[in-house]
Amino acid sequence: MADEARLAMQQINPTRCMELLQRLATFGAVPGGGVAREALTISELEARRWLRSRFSAPHYSWFIDDAANLFLRRAGQSETLAPVMTGSHIDTQPVGGWLDGAYGVIAGLEVFLALDDAGIRTRRPLELVIWTNEEGSRFSPGAMGSSAFADPARLADFLPVTDARGQQFEQARDAARQATPEAMPCPLGHPVHAYLEAHIEQGPVLEDGGFQLGIVTGIQGVRWFEVTVTGTSAHAGTTPLAARRDALMSAARLISRLGERVEARRDPALRFTVGRLEASPGSINTIADRVTFTIDLRHPEEAVLAELDGVIRQTLEAVRGHCRYQLRSLMQRPPTLFDAGVISAVETAVTATGAAACRLGSGAFHDAMYLADVCPTAMLFVPSRDGISHNPAEDTAEADLIAGVRALAGAITTLAAHTDALPIPTLSNQSAQGVNP
Amino acid sequence: MADEARLAMQQINPTRCMELLQRLATFGAVPGGGVAREALTISELEARRWLRSRFSAPHYSWFIDDAANLFLRRAGQSETLAPVMTGSHIDTQPVGGWLDGAYGVIAGLEVFLALDDAGIRTRRPLELVIWTNEEGSRFSPGAMGSSAFADPARLADFLPVTDARGQQFEQARDAARQATPEAMPCPLGHPVHAYLEAHIEQGPVLEDGGFQLGIVTGIQGVRWFEVTVTGTSAHAGTTPLAARRDALMSAARLISRLGERVEARRDPALRFTVGRLEASPGSINTIADRVTFTIDLRHPEEAVLAELDGVIRQTLEAVRGHCRYQLRSLMQRPPTLFDAGVISAVETAVTATGAAACRLGSGAFHDAMYLADVCPTAMLFVPSRDGISHNPAEDTAEADLIAGVRALAGAITTLAAHTDALPIPTLSNQSAQGVNP
Repeated sequence: MADEARLAMQQINPTRCMELLQRLATFGAVPGGGVAREALTISELEARRWLRSRFSAPHYSWFIDDAANLFLRRAGQSETLAPVMTGSHIDTQPVGGWLDGAYGVIAGLEVFLALDDAGIRTRRPLELVIWTNEEGSRFSPGAMGSSAFADPARLADFLPVTDARGQQFEQARDAARQATPEAMPCPLGHPVHAYLEAHIEQGPVLEDGGFQLGIVTGIQGVRWFEVTVTGTSAHAGTTPLAARRDALMSAARLISRLGERVEARRDPALRFTVGRLEASPGSINTIADRVTFTIDLRHPEEAVLAELDGVIRQTLEAVRGHCRYQLRSLMQRPPTLFDAGVISAVETAVTATGAAACRLGSGAFHDAMYLADVCPTAMLFVPSRDGISHNPAEDTAEADLIAGVRALAGAITTLAAHTDALPIPTLSNQSAQGVNP
Repeated sequence: MADEARLAMQQINPTRCMELLQRLATFGAVPGGGVAREALTISELEARRWLRSRFSAPHYSWFIDDAANLFLRRAGQSETLAPVMTGSHIDTQPVGGWLDGAYGVIAGLEVFLALDDAGIRTRRPLELVIWTNEEGSRFSPGAMGSSAFADPARLADFLPVTDARGQQFEQARDAARQATPEAMPCPLGHPVHAYLEAHIEQGPVLEDGGFQLGIVTGIQGVRWFEVTVTGTSAHAGTTPLAARRDALMSAARLISRLGERVEARRDPALRFTVGRLEASPGSINTIADRVTFTIDLRHPEEAVLAELDGVIRQTLEAVRGHCRYQLRSLMQRPPTLFDAGVISAVETAVTATGAAACRLGSGAFHDAMYLADVCPTAMLFVPSRDGISHNPAEDTAEADLIAGVRALAGAITTLAAHTDALPIPTLSNQSAQGVNP
């Protein structure tokens, strides 16, 4: 590793870094715990304003694109080379934790400040990005900003999307751009040498293994389905059991049987979740005529996903009873494989921190999933205490947070010293529709 | 059967009766089918006003009680004898059919008009009642009016209940009373010689058996439960299956197993329904931490209900997996047995119509269930086409509707000729809390 990268790692200032993280958590802080800072709300816009106020030196410049993604560019020795990009998102779930997304943004800012302290001007420019609406809880789907960056044609689908109060994404985006007068407008998507995102793991793997850092090699594939079971509404008191077409009983049997078949595989990498179920008309004394439920299926191997897709369809047909069903694919995304060159830069920097580390795949989606479609990409994880995220209890030990920032500093500085471009990714991953992380 | 009763039956005017039914269905009529006339809404108050406008002769008087139950009293030869009461309700589900409740009210009114035409003054006074909020869809629980009539202490619990828009039952009741200036206020509950309610069956038994009329001997017992399953919310992508406490998977297994155990009994009189299920947080990519579902259990025998209560508790304990559960009893009502004397009067009148008829139990609740607590009570059913109710498709053949009105005329006239009181009911049925029909 070059001296410049080692110097950047040494200059990380733990006190300053933790203060930045804690200050960001005050925007949208919920009394009693947690952060409510959904995408493009007043709280998020105020947090963005505070961040801008911290970086006004002449070698910094701000840009905002058509999805309200906000970029802080740190000038390089050569402004004609494509930048190294880092960052994440600062929007949260309706009530989320203080680190999901926020950690990757503050980690990148601390790296910039450390480089300032060290007097380092990297060869390539650096860019810190704050992606818009990663969570997808205010506007669906999630990762709107990064997916539109990777494929600007997607933006047209996102603009008319409304939140629960009826406000359109387009209005919220316009308001965000108006609230950011010092940022120069820029088009969606521009060449990026490499993208590296630091994030909390949001799962138990690092903690269970006693690791401080994780080098993320990819993101597992996913298929989302919506199943609608249709029966006949009738009176609970007068309709004999044998004469019923009970959509809720049929759905319960389907979910129960699917759970058995999935568990019987004893595959520790398999994820199967029915997270949402709605029964209509939803009355205690009326047989349900319509139940809709979702399936979230994930696995690191595309072949396993395809096989389980078939199992789901067979089970629906076998167990539906007297009801009809409809299976709708909401989203399908093959496994994402991160770039070997970026992974290698991360691994070298992680080793230099001396922290216990491992390679792992990501169970959650991230903005990096879309960046991987258009530039060499990888991620760096720090542990999540008890594996908890999307929850006020979300937390990570300070030593782990700081180890991650140091590793990020080393990797970014190394990547920004590259003269030649890394190989660009193939386009095999670009088939997916929008997703929530 | 006395000549007076035969004469009343003969004087039933099918054309007038159908016109009254069709006119009532215009209040709250939904374009395309169905009736939206929830309790104490403008539509119901207008329907009540129209009914009052039809009965202003000197031998008629209107009363309204503290639950806004509306009574039309037809003077008898002796005003000191307790009246014979008939009627039902004219409120509907959010979108219901044209006959549920409405049929029993119009049937009673047609009997009064037929007695007028025949020049008959019965010995006992007659009362037609329009019970308030039988359906329970606007204000929960249902049958507020009749249950408060049977036990006035219940009213205090009902007054603060709010509808979906936040309006209190008390406000709606006061507005209804103000809109009824020609009705004399009266206290809740007064002596009744006998109560007889005509109603559509809301089930398939009469139609399947080829019967035009049903003599109802009682209402099956019921137990309502709410089950809450508690797990742990976690990320669908990062949490291994073996580490989950998935409340929705646990609930699906519970419902599925309960369904198997109930069906294995092959008891045609048993009813078991899970009609409402809510999963929280209800996100496609988050494991549910809380599921609440309801159980509606019914049977004509109390011993079977008690046994199944135990089966439900055992199954919850055996199938809950890693989740916790809580079982809450929402309501418990033993089987209602109607009065032998009133049943006999109905059977005699039914026989006199010449219609094919049978005795049967009611699967649905009715206002008559509460009246049975305080006076000799029975019911008379006409068939429901395809067993459908609570639905715009609700219908009954005209010949069956008219046969029912004739039988009601005969039975009421017979009961109103009684000099002596019928034996009053025992109080064993009075333990139940409020219910929706």
